[in-house]
Amino acid sequence: MQDLIRQLREQNKTKIVLLVADGLGGLPIEPGGLTELETARTPNLDNLVAEGICGLSTPVAPGITPGSGPGHLGLFGFDPLKHDIGRGVLEALGIGVEVGPKDVAIRGNFCTIDAQGHVTDRRAGRIPTEVCEKLVAKLKAQIKVEGVETLIEPVREYRLVVRFRGENLGDNVCDTDPLSTGMLTLEPKAGDEGSKRTALVAAEFLRQAKEILKDETPANYLMMRGFANFPKIATMEEIYGLRSAAIAVYPMYRGLARLVGMTVVEPGKTIADQMEVLKQEWEKYDFFFLHYKYTDSTGEDGNFAKKVEVIEALDAEIPKLKVLKPDVVIVTGDHSTPSRMKSHSFHPVPTLIWAPATVRPDLVTAFGERPCIQGGLGQFLAKDIMPLALAHAGRLQKFGA
Amino acid sequence: MQDLIRQLREQNKTKIVLLVADGLGGLPIEPGGLTELETARTPNLDNLVAEGICGLSTPVAPGITPGSGPGHLGLFGFDPLKHDIGRGVLEALGIGVEVGPKDVAIRGNFCTIDAQGHVTDRRAGRIPTEVCEKLVAKLKAQIKVEGVETLIEPVREYRLVVRFRGENLGDNVCDTDPLSTGMLTLEPKAGDEGSKRTALVAAEFLRQAKEILKDETPANYLMMRGFANFPKIATMEEIYGLRSAAIAVYPMYRGLARLVGMTVVEPGKTIADQMEVLKQEWEKYDFFFLHYKYTDSTGEDGNFAKKVEVIEALDAEIPKLKVLKPDVVIVTGDHSTPSRMKSHSFHPVPTLIWAPATVRPDLVTAFGERPCIQGGLGQFLAKDIMPLALAHAGRLQKFGA
Repeated sequence: MQDLIRQLREQNKTKIVLLVADGLGGLPIEPGGLTELETARTPNLDNLVAEGICGLSTPVAPGITPGSGPGHLGLFGFDPLKHDIGRGVLEALGIGVEVGPKDVAIRGNFCTIDAQGHVTDRRAGRIPTEVCEKLVAKLKAQIKVEGVETLIEPVREYRLVVRFRGENLGDNVCDTDPLSTGMLTLEPKAGDEGSKRTALVAAEFLRQAKEILKDETPANYLMMRGFANFPKIATMEEIYGLRSAAIAVYPMYRGLARLVGMTVVEPGKTIADQMEVLKQEWEKYDFFFLHYKYTDSTGEDGNFAKKVEVIEALDAEIPKLKVLKPDVVIVTGDHSTPSRMKSHSFHPVPTLIWAPATVRPDLVTAFGERPCIQGGLGQFLAKDIMPLALAHAGRLQKFGA
Repeated sequence: MQDLIRQLREQNKTKIVLLVADGLGGLPIEPGGLTELETARTPNLDNLVAEGICGLSTPVAPGITPGSGPGHLGLFGFDPLKHDIGRGVLEALGIGVEVGPKDVAIRGNFCTIDAQGHVTDRRAGRIPTEVCEKLVAKLKAQIKVEGVETLIEPVREYRLVVRFRGENLGDNVCDTDPLSTGMLTLEPKAGDEGSKRTALVAAEFLRQAKEILKDETPANYLMMRGFANFPKIATMEEIYGLRSAAIAVYPMYRGLARLVGMTVVEPGKTIADQMEVLKQEWEKYDFFFLHYKYTDSTGEDGNFAKKVEVIEALDAEIPKLKVLKPDVVIVTGDHSTPSRMKSHSFHPVPTLIWAPATVRPDLVTAFGERPCIQGGLGQFLAKDIMPLALAHAGRLQKFGA
């Protein structure tokens, strides 16, 4: 499909906005009740639905609950089953650490171990970010592993990223986190020949780190997980010919956007800030990915009322978007996060496409899970959204004579 | 997809029931009329739909009318276009004849031939099963084909199964049934190099059988059809981690269940018996396949009123199912069998999923072909039912970070 799009695409001056309300889809709390989105008062989103077309998107495949990586890859038009992005890479990209073909990126956790080496706190008492930064600086100053270039960066609280750059650094290495306290940390073991050097490098890194941190408290050691090489993936510009900008507050989503070649612009902190940035950057790009986190985090917290509230807050910003006169607006989520389940779920995601020049409207006039069942987009895979967006933007030529 | 499920699956104590009303979907007799399912009074199924989610499943692909084999493979989560199960294997499994990788299984028909060898009755006057058993015993006692192990078993009336076990027994051999009376039976001809030995073995078997049966009446010969090797297929336990039981009255469906590794438990004779068996076996399995034949056989008979009646009889048993407190109930069919057509058809199949903990209900409150068009499952491939069932049972972990 992406090859076809490369053949058919053409340039014009249209603007496409992909607004991702993370974890948008929900569930009713009570049998017969409404979902979060159905409960929320959303006159502006309802108006986009009334003028546009809606449906339900399946992020990966029926029944599959996606993480943020596969969920967003689908929205960017990639088949999430064919492109695997390791967690280490996501985390690194998210904090602006460049990752390339010779790298293996790893998520680190500062932790507390006792004199025998047993883990007593897997998160080192959730040390504040400043302590994390100080410890990372100490490690940076002292650690030196022969034959590789080592980069260490703080993320937040007890979390850090380690990147090794060098030859023959495969990423099939097991996590060293034993996943419960009272256990020894695990050795970084290679799962294949090509990852043996990575395991040796990681073991040496951990040996030095233990020595360097031994007198610190509570964070006197660290664990590694999510070893990951940079995935082979094309950029939005290569595939779609779109100069693309990401306006996302949280590191993970900035990282995902960088992975597919988007420019990450400074997002501010609130959705109002993001809309302001969108306005400022409007002339410079063809495609804008706006990421709104709070529909997911309130769902994860199991806070139905708060999720309703953040949906209404998002809705209130929609007029600012319309003022810019975009050609195509997509509002969707990367997956559902029902507050009843307090987690990502497999349920399909309410999705709307608004494109005044080309949309064939359906009969739906409200944005919600049940209204979207009746929508003109039907039920479809999230990876179909980008081709539809390009089509609505007049950016795809006819296929065949 | 099945590889993904193997990676993501996790165990818990949930129970899943797949209730297959064979040939469930139908058609109105008169323009503007109702289908069999829409006509039937089904308060209990309607209640499952009202509390659950529904849609229309396509067994194989749009426009394709499936046999029982492909229809059920789809329901068990296999792509019927990628897994071909020969009719001989199905028949053998259905009567409890083990079939393995060195075997070729064949359906046999006792028939009547005249002195010149022309077929005068393709079913030997539908001899009673006891006569079939007697003739099979006679063949068993005398037939000996060099180099293969031969097994012969009666099925019912004029039907039997022959299984050859040995090396290099391909299954590309044509049927010997000429399909009309007054013709000579055909030679078992091989369609490829790897099946030549099977053709030779079958020809020798038929030569001896003709001699042994020559003085019998009316069944003085037999014909072979549906030559089939055992397909390479994984079990429900291997893919889904589900201990699975089949509660099916008819041999074919027990055979299909055995093929994917289900335990076939004794089903009794009626749907009420099947429900009783379900109750007795409830603790021992995670997944139950209940097969209800009469929606198909009444459809095949072209008996609209009787099909309505057997749907109502099935509906009346649903409360016994709910009493067991299953986590997920799926009600569907392996294909449509409209009584107007007196045959299987390609029409999609009304399907409901009831799963109180996780289902996102739609607005549909009645089980029927037209109501299901509006359902939250939309239109989907039957092979998606198993991933959805596992997801609703909380048996699939998140995919990706």
